[in-house]
Amino acid sequence: MNTTATNQSPARGPIDHEVRDQIVSAATEHFRLYGYEKTTVSDLAKAIGFSKAYIYKFFESKQAIGELICANCLREIETDIRAAVDSADGAPEKLRRMFKAIVESSMRLFSEDRKLYDIAAAAATGHWEAARNYESRIQQILQDILRLGRETEDFERKTPLDETMNAIYLVMRPYLNPLLLQYSFDCIDEAPARLASLVLRSLSR
Amino acid sequence: MNTTATNQSPARGPIDHEVRDQIVSAATEHFRLYGYEKTTVSDLAKAIGFSKAYIYKFFESKQAIGELICANCLREIETDIRAAVDSADGAPEKLRRMFKAIVESSMRLFSEDRKLYDIAAAAATGHWEAARNYESRIQQILQDILRLGRETEDFERKTPLDETMNAIYLVMRPYLNPLLLQYSFDCIDEAPARLASLVLRSLSR
Repeated sequence: MNTTATNQSPARGPIDHEVRDQIVSAATEHFRLYGYEKTTVSDLAKAIGFSKAYIYKFFESKQAIGELICANCLREIETDIRAAVDSADGAPEKLRRMFKAIVESSMRLFSEDRKLYDIAAAAATGHWEAARNYESRIQQILQDILRLGRETEDFERKTPLDETMNAIYLVMRPYLNPLLLQYSFDCIDEAPARLASLVLRSLSR
Repeated sequence: MNTTATNQSPARGPIDHEVRDQIVSAATEHFRLYGYEKTTVSDLAKAIGFSKAYIYKFFESKQAIGELICANCLREIETDIRAAVDSADGAPEKLRRMFKAIVESSMRLFSEDRKLYDIAAAAATGHWEAARNYESRIQQILQDILRLGRETEDFERKTPLDETMNAIYLVMRPYLNPLLLQYSFDCIDEAPARLASLVLRSLSR
């Protein structure tokens, strides 16, 4: 419990945990309205009704708060992707759904929560831990599909699994990374199906 | 001759052509030093020693000058890509070289001519004609390789050519588009070979 706090502040215990949650939830609202980049910890303190010093007791910086919010956003996308993959039968269909869910879920965050999307963009630029963890969890989902497809003999097994996984991840990356996604709106409709088909052809035995 | 002028100004003839070239070459130098976005036509006029009105006789806007410079830059990248493709034997190797040349040549423009790269970025954002023409010429190179590979029976022919071409173009796009390329430096070293191998697996018979 409260493990996220251990690297960021001396605050501990279940009550501290509640205060942290309260700060994160108020900050999420504030960033949603005013944007991440433009908000200072002083602005946040004023809006929440805490002193700046009190906030710093729980978070060492604005980025530490942003990281948690970002982790929550990315976790939502990941949940969507997992649900889409789990709902499909067989590795090929799982892979198709994965491409589709990546684009749909990232686009939803972009259009509904533009201001929070800015945090995800900051995370991607700054290689925040939240963004790196997200990347590895998405790679894990992909690897599980590939393993399954190899077991069921839907996919070829000549190419080393790592090589296959890394290459497919590179194909997905422009739609996972918010910084890249914003320049891909023109091809967002057809991209998931086309790329999934190409990738499936590359996996055929 | 002087066909590029016809849509942009009433200026005509071989001497006008020389003046246009002179403006473009001076503007290229100026943009290279001071950047495209920050320079106005007045700045340019002052730097070249022409009146603003005289420049407007040949170009209807700064963008019209930018378009020509951008077209020149993109033409250089295209020449590099064509040379790389032509120097290789067989469709599979041509495709590998194409991926490699796209990344290398775009990266060279980015690192050597950062200020001119900004023009290419503006072109990509604004869907300038120069950028659209570049896209279709690159797609043509790709299509020629695919046709060749189908003729020589290196590539499968079940998938419609257009579908194959569009999907592979989507895979190349993040490395062709300057706006996307700037966020892909982390994977620039391994991306061309990995993606080319994946694409070649997708084309196997």
